[in-house]
Amino acid sequence: MTADPGFANLTTACAFVDQLAVSGVRQAVICPGSRSTPIAVSLATHPKLRVWVHIDERAAAFFALGMARKLREPVAILSTSGTAAANILPAVVEAQLSRIPLIVLTADRPPELRDWGAAQTIDQIRLFGEHAKWFADMPVPMIDDALVRHARAVAVRAVQSARADPQGPVHLNFPFREPLLPAGSRPPLHLQPLFEEGRGSDVADNEPSRLVAAGGVLDALASQISRVPRGIIVCGPAQGKDLAPAVTALGAVSGYPILADPLSTLRFGAHDRSRIIDAYDPFLRDTLTADALQPDMVIRVGAIPTSKPLQQFLLARPDRTHAIVDAGAPRDPNHLASTVIHGDPAVTLTAVAERLQGSEITGREEWMHAWTLADRAAKTAISHALSVNDDLFEGRAVAEVATLLPEGATLAVGNSMPIRDVDAFVRGDSRRLRIVSNRGANGIDGVVSTALGAAAVSDEPVVLVVGDLSFLHDLNGMLAAKLFDINATVVVLNNDGGGIFSFLPQAEQLESPVFEALFGTPTGVNIGAAARLFAASYARPGDWHAFRRDLCRALHAPGLSIVELETDRHQNVEQHRIIWAAVAAALHPAAAVGV
Amino acid sequence: MTADPGFANLTTACAFVDQLAVSGVRQAVICPGSRSTPIAVSLATHPKLRVWVHIDERAAAFFALGMARKLREPVAILSTSGTAAANILPAVVEAQLSRIPLIVLTADRPPELRDWGAAQTIDQIRLFGEHAKWFADMPVPMIDDALVRHARAVAVRAVQSARADPQGPVHLNFPFREPLLPAGSRPPLHLQPLFEEGRGSDVADNEPSRLVAAGGVLDALASQISRVPRGIIVCGPAQGKDLAPAVTALGAVSGYPILADPLSTLRFGAHDRSRIIDAYDPFLRDTLTADALQPDMVIRVGAIPTSKPLQQFLLARPDRTHAIVDAGAPRDPNHLASTVIHGDPAVTLTAVAERLQGSEITGREEWMHAWTLADRAAKTAISHALSVNDDLFEGRAVAEVATLLPEGATLAVGNSMPIRDVDAFVRGDSRRLRIVSNRGANGIDGVVSTALGAAAVSDEPVVLVVGDLSFLHDLNGMLAAKLFDINATVVVLNNDGGGIFSFLPQAEQLESPVFEALFGTPTGVNIGAAARLFAASYARPGDWHAFRRDLCRALHAPGLSIVELETDRHQNVEQHRIIWAAVAAALHPAAAVGV
Repeated sequence: MTADPGFANLTTACAFVDQLAVSGVRQAVICPGSRSTPIAVSLATHPKLRVWVHIDERAAAFFALGMARKLREPVAILSTSGTAAANILPAVVEAQLSRIPLIVLTADRPPELRDWGAAQTIDQIRLFGEHAKWFADMPVPMIDDALVRHARAVAVRAVQSARADPQGPVHLNFPFREPLLPAGSRPPLHLQPLFEEGRGSDVADNEPSRLVAAGGVLDALASQISRVPRGIIVCGPAQGKDLAPAVTALGAVSGYPILADPLSTLRFGAHDRSRIIDAYDPFLRDTLTADALQPDMVIRVGAIPTSKPLQQFLLARPDRTHAIVDAGAPRDPNHLASTVIHGDPAVTLTAVAERLQGSEITGREEWMHAWTLADRAAKTAISHALSVNDDLFEGRAVAEVATLLPEGATLAVGNSMPIRDVDAFVRGDSRRLRIVSNRGANGIDGVVSTALGAAAVSDEPVVLVVGDLSFLHDLNGMLAAKLFDINATVVVLNNDGGGIFSFLPQAEQLESPVFEALFGTPTGVNIGAAARLFAASYARPGDWHAFRRDLCRALHAPGLSIVELETDRHQNVEQHRIIWAAVAAALHPAAAVGV
Repeated sequence: MTADPGFANLTTACAFVDQLAVSGVRQAVICPGSRSTPIAVSLATHPKLRVWVHIDERAAAFFALGMARKLREPVAILSTSGTAAANILPAVVEAQLSRIPLIVLTADRPPELRDWGAAQTIDQIRLFGEHAKWFADMPVPMIDDALVRHARAVAVRAVQSARADPQGPVHLNFPFREPLLPAGSRPPLHLQPLFEEGRGSDVADNEPSRLVAAGGVLDALASQISRVPRGIIVCGPAQGKDLAPAVTALGAVSGYPILADPLSTLRFGAHDRSRIIDAYDPFLRDTLTADALQPDMVIRVGAIPTSKPLQQFLLARPDRTHAIVDAGAPRDPNHLASTVIHGDPAVTLTAVAERLQGSEITGREEWMHAWTLADRAAKTAISHALSVNDDLFEGRAVAEVATLLPEGATLAVGNSMPIRDVDAFVRGDSRRLRIVSNRGANGIDGVVSTALGAAAVSDEPVVLVVGDLSFLHDLNGMLAAKLFDINATVVVLNNDGGGIFSFLPQAEQLESPVFEALFGTPTGVNIGAAARLFAASYARPGDWHAFRRDLCRALHAPGLSIVELETDRHQNVEQHRIIWAAVAAALHPAAAVGV
């Protein structure tokens, strides 16, 4: 034991990494670099960790995020110092807002080299600002048992902090002095003994604690529900495995319909589906129907629903009882909450349902029936409208994809139009399908990487539906599929530009050349060439029969498959309008029930 | 004039944008988005601004940085809210450290929507932390002359702040309430009157002020120089147009050799070249030579030199007089400065040279001669070694490129090995060549975009030399060339992975599979396929004759041309060692002079 910095670096890094593994981290994404060597070597040689070496830190961080969301457990991502670390910010922001546990590790120069013009040295102190839940600037390693204990303690705390409600990203910055590895060390480095000094803390220790609301608060909510017949439960984007049983239990005792966002975990699944309403986005666009169905009480969990018509519907009566249940800060941009219950939604709704179990709530069937009628009418109208139109319409594309997915599959969805189309055109059923999307910050960045991250740790098919701009934004993301032989399918809805902008007022307000330049932004990039670049298989079906055939092939093919569907940005707006009109025509019988 | 938010948004945005233009901004990069519409429309319709609409904010920001460096003036970059804005961080960090004026504009939600779960809304307050020189969160626009005045004042201040020494990035965050544009407005929006309310401030007002050291400090430095015969002037990476005349003037009166980094503006050019030493990287690797040439005084300007042998050489005598002249914080990671002069280097060195003009400094010819001998010996040895070796060696590639560049061309250089090879193998001459590289943070990210930004505003050829990993990291950067028909040449030195790591101790210390996985990181990506994806022309010469032919063709071809040179990572280390040995063999006569 000497003052060899390399030995101290490696000892500390091994202790930290070993404790991450003991605390339940199983996956680590590594971006190449020199300064990060002690941690990279520790991660790569730890017997219980799987490492994924990726080139582009931005893509790598979203890849880690996709894994963490799929596995519902923290994933580590390592970068070297400098702008490499700065590239991770977008994924950190998304992880914070969509509440995904990420453990971001950045290597750094020691303090004496910072802010003195040293190479590849930037200010990494709180690099991600408020976007990381927890930040620690680690001490420069020395041969000192106290520092090894500290490294292990930080690992435990990082995992617990990332997993604590609301889950999110933590950032640890590791300075290392040169030499980075023990002087004169030759392969193989014998790291095994360093890994065996684990504290032996049980992985079960790291099951996250859950926030439970006070009994009086639960009593009050139960009492309100028993008094108000016309209530609804709104489930926005959420992750929890046990949310579906809790919500359906409350639905059953309260008689309330459950409006299930595609990202809520409730739209698909084997749970009690009798009260699930999932065509609200189309039918709430109809004013008569929306007016007739205005509830007196709203119970809302999860993030803000994807559906703008639903948001408008909730906004129409700002004075009503509107209870939000959230373990983090309330997500309520229209400031509609009359009650904010600070607690885990699954735990809270289960407890409220239990309180209502004895009370005999009756006479709410007609209310539920009105919702069911509207839901069915919209579904039938949409189903018919899609079946009679053979155009390559984006709404039909997402519906076709959803229909073909096998049990257990994951449907990853891009932001902008794809997630809105999934909301409007994908009807749930009892298949165990998981729909995921980066709805924290709704970015079009990192979408391919996030999907491939999910696919990397999934035994069942993963299909991403994404627009061409979002696909292009994360072109590098495809490298992961090539490097790691990931099986996945990407459906690119190619309307050569920013399709969503055609739905905005700007499309009417600006002269066409200005609009096209600023919002249409056609790139003319050839999707097939992108597929070839990353050795992906590629198909470009010209009709729905071919689309289904190519998608089925892709689902069973090894590696990355890209299916391009060429659509028309301008027609797309009109096609949506035609369907909304068909839904309105079908709805008025439902509205006429006069509930 | 009503309370129409759209009208207020547009009025404020137009006033701000108009003032940017009046204050000297001529180029603006726009990334598509909705919330940013008022500024995007103002930029796109302003008669004096040229706009560049780019898809990927990370690439777009580096593209803006490349333009700003080439033009030596501030360039604006606009993004919408959310992770879009977060993608700009890497370029902001680079702009801060390499002192490039950037004006980053981000759109945002108004305060009442922030931190309440609204879509595409993240915490953008001080999003870039300490990396932006100045940050302002703008007020939400209202119809109020005071706010219009404020918007104009902010534009003036943003330009001045970005250009003030040390130059760098500023960040302005613009909240907009809906509707984003005037209600019911139809094309064409008549923005012209809004643009004509400029304050009429003269562009000359915005010539940046320069920091001048006190007379006593200048006297002291002049006095030291006159007393110390064995001094050197070290010029690291720098931007200033007038640095070369100042440094050469001081060289002439002091008798000191001038060690010119490739990025110093002094290696090439029509200035007095008699004292320029540019083969120091090779010859200071030789211990005997380095010992013989140790100076008693160092005057250093610019950032830390690229050359590690030069850094080691300076570090060998930490106690000597070592004066740093810098208008910003001193860049001195080894803490060698005995004097830090806080002033503009060109102004300072000119003033010191003037002070020495009268004094008759003599007897320093032998000292200069010793440096010249070493320089010539190294040059001759390298030139011979390169000419007799027909392998596709990366060092020869950069030398070949430099030889073929015409007067006025820009040589953009990637980090990691390319810039080191340029330092070691590219000898200067009187051609007006500009060599640029992102040496602020030395990132491998954004390199293609930065080069294309320079090319976009250049009438003369721009050639980028970059490694395959760095090229791949910024694949999306090539989109700019496609969208804007930019003429540029990219030479990709493809060694299929991270070549620089083979030079590090880790290459010896780790087992080969671990090393390859963590550092070698071969991707196997086909460069030709990448070229086709972005409609670039492509060549892959197999020998030096073909390389020269393909490069000459590329220099005269329209659009983006990619020339791939396949090299060998493992051989590359050995090839470097052989040349250093040849240089050492050639040098000992120089060292034997015994100065």
